[in-house]
Amino acid sequence: MTFAQKLENIGDKNNSLLCVGLDSRFEKLQKAFQKKDYPQFAFNKWIIEQTHDLVCAYKPNTAFYEERGADGITELKMTCHYLVKYYPEIPIILDAKRGDIGSTNEGYVKFAFTYLSADAITLHPYLGKEALRPFLDQKEKGCIILCKTSNPGSGEFQDISIDPPFEGGAQRAEDENKLYKTVAQSVVKKWNSNGNCMLVVGATYPKELAEVRKIVGDMTLLIPGIGAQGGDIGKTLQAGLNSKGAGMIINSSRGIIFSKDPREEAKKLRENINKYRS
Amino acid sequence: MTFAQKLENIGDKNNSLLCVGLDSRFEKLQKAFQKKDYPQFAFNKWIIEQTHDLVCAYKPNTAFYEERGADGITELKMTCHYLVKYYPEIPIILDAKRGDIGSTNEGYVKFAFTYLSADAITLHPYLGKEALRPFLDQKEKGCIILCKTSNPGSGEFQDISIDPPFEGGAQRAEDENKLYKTVAQSVVKKWNSNGNCMLVVGATYPKELAEVRKIVGDMTLLIPGIGAQGGDIGKTLQAGLNSKGAGMIINSSRGIIFSKDPREEAKKLRENINKYRS
Repeated sequence: MTFAQKLENIGDKNNSLLCVGLDSRFEKLQKAFQKKDYPQFAFNKWIIEQTHDLVCAYKPNTAFYEERGADGITELKMTCHYLVKYYPEIPIILDAKRGDIGSTNEGYVKFAFTYLSADAITLHPYLGKEALRPFLDQKEKGCIILCKTSNPGSGEFQDISIDPPFEGGAQRAEDENKLYKTVAQSVVKKWNSNGNCMLVVGATYPKELAEVRKIVGDMTLLIPGIGAQGGDIGKTLQAGLNSKGAGMIINSSRGIIFSKDPREEAKKLRENINKYRS
Repeated sequence: MTFAQKLENIGDKNNSLLCVGLDSRFEKLQKAFQKKDYPQFAFNKWIIEQTHDLVCAYKPNTAFYEERGADGITELKMTCHYLVKYYPEIPIILDAKRGDIGSTNEGYVKFAFTYLSADAITLHPYLGKEALRPFLDQKEKGCIILCKTSNPGSGEFQDISIDPPFEGGAQRAEDENKLYKTVAQSVVKKWNSNGNCMLVVGATYPKELAEVRKIVGDMTLLIPGIGAQGGDIGKTLQAGLNSKGAGMIINSSRGIIFSKDPREEAKKLRENINKYRS
């Protein structure tokens, strides 16, 4: 089954567009977890047990495991394999933001899809389609390309005006063309021959999210930036839903996993999101 | 000592601009190494013992270690710590091509600089300076930003014409402005307040290399693409040397480490490079 199908099935079953980010930084774990043999895995298991009927995906960010080196990578693997074994219907998005030349990307493909058994990975667009081919060729796996990222300074390059406007795009005089729109255009028109591409657009930029939605049709978008980063749920949903009232993976990490009651927070956020779906 | 100082010292001592890429993919190792307990580490040690007096840096690419999961990460660490212990004068460039939002990059900073003790890391520019701040703030460490990459399809976004031309740049009518030049301009003018930034420019693009050199003054450039990827040494050196006849880290990975006689290949390449330095 492809990542997209898996995502749709569990989204329907759990009535959810909510993705929980397993950004389980060791330093932020409760003491009781920090003392365990496999602290990050134990914490993730605890989070998963509370939230598996509320989510459409889990998204561990590699940085928070790599910072502990081989031990962290082992616990990331344990987490992924736990999900594969007990909740095989829930897709795993590896938030790794990788992107190298073609022959090197084969190594990352093995890391994400063979070693960890993830269903999708986030990728940098800067090296272009030709370099990302080893990822794009994995028909069953999701390739989620950074488009307009959630951070305050994402405009430095992503909002650069480009010339000439992309084919079929708006004229510059009326609506300046930007790099992030060109990335969206390229991915939807040229990169997606296997139907396995998606894009990352931050909830902190609802205007840009609406622009991306216009460009990509019903393509699914991964949306970070809700919660700790300050993205507004209503504005995000209004800007980003596709014609089927879906097409979004809305991620919250710290806002859920480090809250007093992760299950309650996840439930509240799922319901909050669903209020805006028709 | 900063990465730049370390690089200059060893470059003088070894009379070398050559960086050996430790892309020690398990599958490509000789059987004798594959059978060892720590195959990648054993191979790297063998390469280092043959080449340490010929190089200005070593550059392991994380992909080839991550593909073996926690075991690979352990051997990457063993390799870095071996260098720190026995050849502390040789800098380690972690070719990781990372780049996430600020709070997440802190995890990668720990991985590269605390866990592995690397001296420099390669980074994607797409999220902008604000996101990369945790790297840029490491004054002693090198931040090597992707500018014009060596892969055949790197032009898809990197060569996009942008408008208006960057401040102080050429007029579009005479010399179209491109995204990779804007990245170079931003890094040299805005990102480099700690003097710890460098750029990646592929040897496969000598014309673009000359353009970048014009923009960045004497800034050091990391140059992949010699050897297996087909970059020409003469053209690369002519285009890329700075006013001091240096300012380049010329990387070769497969062409050296998987050759019949790595020491001979490294020697030949170092001498070949030095022929073009005045």
